Amino acid sequence: MRVLGVDPGLTRCGVGVVEGVAGRPLTMVGVGVVRTPVDAELGQRLVAIEQGIEQWLDEHRPEVVAVERVFSQHNVRTVMGTAQASAVAMLCAARRGLPVALHTPSEVKAAVTGSGRAEKAQVGAMVTRLLRLDAPPKPADAADALALAICHIWRAPAQNRLQQAVALHAANSTKGRTA
Amino acid sequence: MRVLGVDPGLTRCGVGVVEGVAGRPLTMVGVGVVRTPVDAELGQRLVAIEQGIEQWLDEHRPEVVAVERVFSQHNVRTVMGTAQASAVAMLCAARRGLPVALHTPSEVKAAVTGSGRAEKAQVGAMVTRLLRLDAPPKPADAADALALAICHIWRAPAQNRLQQAVALHAANSTKGRTA
Repeated sequence: MRVLGVDPGLTRCGVGVVEGVAGRPLTMVGVGVVRTPVDAELGQRLVAIEQGIEQWLDEHRPEVVAVERVFSQHNVRTVMGTAQASAVAMLCAARRGLPVALHTPSEVKAAVTGSGRAEKAQVGAMVTRLLRLDAPPKPADAADALALAICHIWRAPAQNRLQQAVALHAANSTKGRTA
Repeated sequence: MRVLGVDPGLTRCGVGVVEGVAGRPLTMVGVGVVRTPVDAELGQRLVAIEQGIEQWLDEHRPEVVAVERVFSQHNVRTVMGTAQASAVAMLCAARRGLPVALHTPSEVKAAVTGSGRAEKAQVGAMVTRLLRLDAPPKPADAADALALAICHIWRAPAQNRLQQAVALHAANSTKGRTA
């Protein structure tokens, strides 16, 4: 499974591609940041993010895009920009028919460090170890994007099993009624 | 001036096109709502909004797109969807090189009713009167989109005069320094 993780932001949008399956060593395919100028008009910044994400999708052809789920209890000023950048990332993925998965920051932290309240540095250190890198990816947004992709690869089997169980249960209930 | 007003929302995105200049009777060119199913995946809903907005831009060829400025002090649950829908509208406009103007809800209310704290019904009534319609456009999102477009047409001359004054002042200051 090849996953593009996106840590959304207007000024810095972290992007990272990870390949692998749960239970096996993972491979980093690429990591970077899509930046937009702070003084540009909002519409122009969203266009720049769209172009950046499209380029990553074209180049790395992920099968899934994992985006950080944005909550509004955070900093009121930045949260709107984060929501808008995440909308562009989700739009680019869905337009290509790619599944979009949302994971909360604490799900991501818990997946890579074991604690949902881990610090940035701890996430960076675990991403470095899990992907066998020489140093933590900089800036933190880039490391967070990789952590999102890792989180998705590790959570996907459980999510799929859950979906299969629900589907099976629904099928059995239907059988029960028709028998 | 032909303006597309967009009252952003994931479930109902109000759209309205108004033509005219400040100080002259205005004309409604079109009004409607772009809807997306509540049970669809978020990425798919954003794609549906993009398609809807693109259709309105293709059909009515506005020169400006006016979008409601989203604040996060509102309902925490809906505000993220509103921010995401507004991002798609701004992206569609900016991608075509159209200027995007943001107006706050109280600016819009003040423009059409004289009070920044007017009720929904009052906005609907004034939109009906100003555009010489037979009845208030329904749903309220559609009326709000028209109010946004009217607000932009009426505020634009003042905004332009301000910009010209700033530019003139800057030019004169430069002259003063070089003389």
